Amino acid sequence: MSPSGAFSLDQLMELAGLACAQALSKTFPLPAHKRVMVCCGPGNQGGDGLVAARHLHMFKYKPTIYLPKPGSKDIYQRLLRQCENLKIPVLRDTTEFESGLKQHDVILDAIFGFSFKPPLRSPFDKIIHSLRSSNLPILSIDIPSGWDVELGPQRLETQPDSEGKTSVVDTFDPEALISLTVPKMGVREYKGRHWLGGRFVSEELDEKFQLNLPDYEGTEQVVELPQGGQ
Amino acid sequence: MSPSGAFSLDQLMELAGLACAQALSKTFPLPAHKRVMVCCGPGNQGGDGLVAARHLHMFKYKPTIYLPKPGSKDIYQRLLRQCENLKIPVLRDTTEFESGLKQHDVILDAIFGFSFKPPLRSPFDKIIHSLRSSNLPILSIDIPSGWDVELGPQRLETQPDSEGKTSVVDTFDPEALISLTVPKMGVREYKGRHWLGGRFVSEELDEKFQLNLPDYEGTEQVVELPQGGQ
Repeated sequence: MSPSGAFSLDQLMELAGLACAQALSKTFPLPAHKRVMVCCGPGNQGGDGLVAARHLHMFKYKPTIYLPKPGSKDIYQRLLRQCENLKIPVLRDTTEFESGLKQHDVILDAIFGFSFKPPLRSPFDKIIHSLRSSNLPILSIDIPSGWDVELGPQRLETQPDSEGKTSVVDTFDPEALISLTVPKMGVREYKGRHWLGGRFVSEELDEKFQLNLPDYEGTEQVVELPQGGQ
Repeated sequence: MSPSGAFSLDQLMELAGLACAQALSKTFPLPAHKRVMVCCGPGNQGGDGLVAARHLHMFKYKPTIYLPKPGSKDIYQRLLRQCENLKIPVLRDTTEFESGLKQHDVILDAIFGFSFKPPLRSPFDKIIHSLRSSNLPILSIDIPSGWDVELGPQRLETQPDSEGKTSVVDTFDPEALISLTVPKMGVREYKGRHWLGGRFVSEELDEKFQLNLPDYEGTEQVVELPQGGQ
């Protein structure tokens, strides 16, 4: 199923990232949650994170971007430049990120999306561990990073190191989640605050695939789903 | 001045059109203003109109698009297809448009933007006249269609017809206006409800060009400006 119709990636990411920024601002309002660490992966989800960071800046938050492996597509370069033009700090280094976490109030998890498959490659093993042990509230985009899109939370084997050793990392359970377009199978037992974003799906697709999408209010780009699994 | 930075046209139009749809919904709320005639010109402003029509549909309005001269750029074709996928009716014919106006509650004017220069070409002479005499409330995007970007309202000479004759058309004074990025010189005496959209301008540009942009609230994409000229 492609809900994207004639939409360009630029449009879809703009709407997705805006919805993520709205969900964060509703779950973690100002001024208590001003400093947001936006963790961006190398794929589309990282692009959503970059767009969200920019909108969070416009919403008067103070985002920091952590981007250990920038995506190579032209769009990520442009989205990053838009953030740099706003003087949003960008961290590349895992140690800097780990020590920087202490100066933040909330984490926006835009690392892995629904297409993630283990094993977990460096430095994402350390990052998942840092998020898990940070004690900061987390809002995850679409699916918590490392969860299986169908099975949900899982223990992740890391890629073998130079000596051929692997280790196991547990995924984390975020305080809040924003599903994009439709909630994925893997989050059906998710118990935290749960938003839906992606207000561009036609009634036709909604009916055809029996998505049973809830009604968005007014001009909102997100709608809250009932808590406690679906 | 270019406020666009590293932004793509897709992104800018998406944000502009969303802001226009929000401004319309705040000025002309449901259910009294459900049926919106979205008049789209052949340029960028028409693109903003197509995006706004799509978001108005998602906001539960019933838009009709009037598109007498579709823009040829690929982006307009895609934006139009996105609307057609939602089954938003599209009128091409001026007579259909004129008789269709009676079944609408409000007009979104996305015909001409800040780069319009007379003479007025067919069928836009008829369209401007129809808008002026329709008795429907109008929300104009950026600058009311036909106004001069610096001088404001003006009498417009039409292009000579086959017999070499020209005529004169008066512009109209819309009930509401959404300026994009910054209000233009030509609307400084404008007295109706006035919104500003385009929440992506950096503080740096705001200061450099002394734009004195007002503060947007929360996650809003529009902010209302004081009424009665600036």
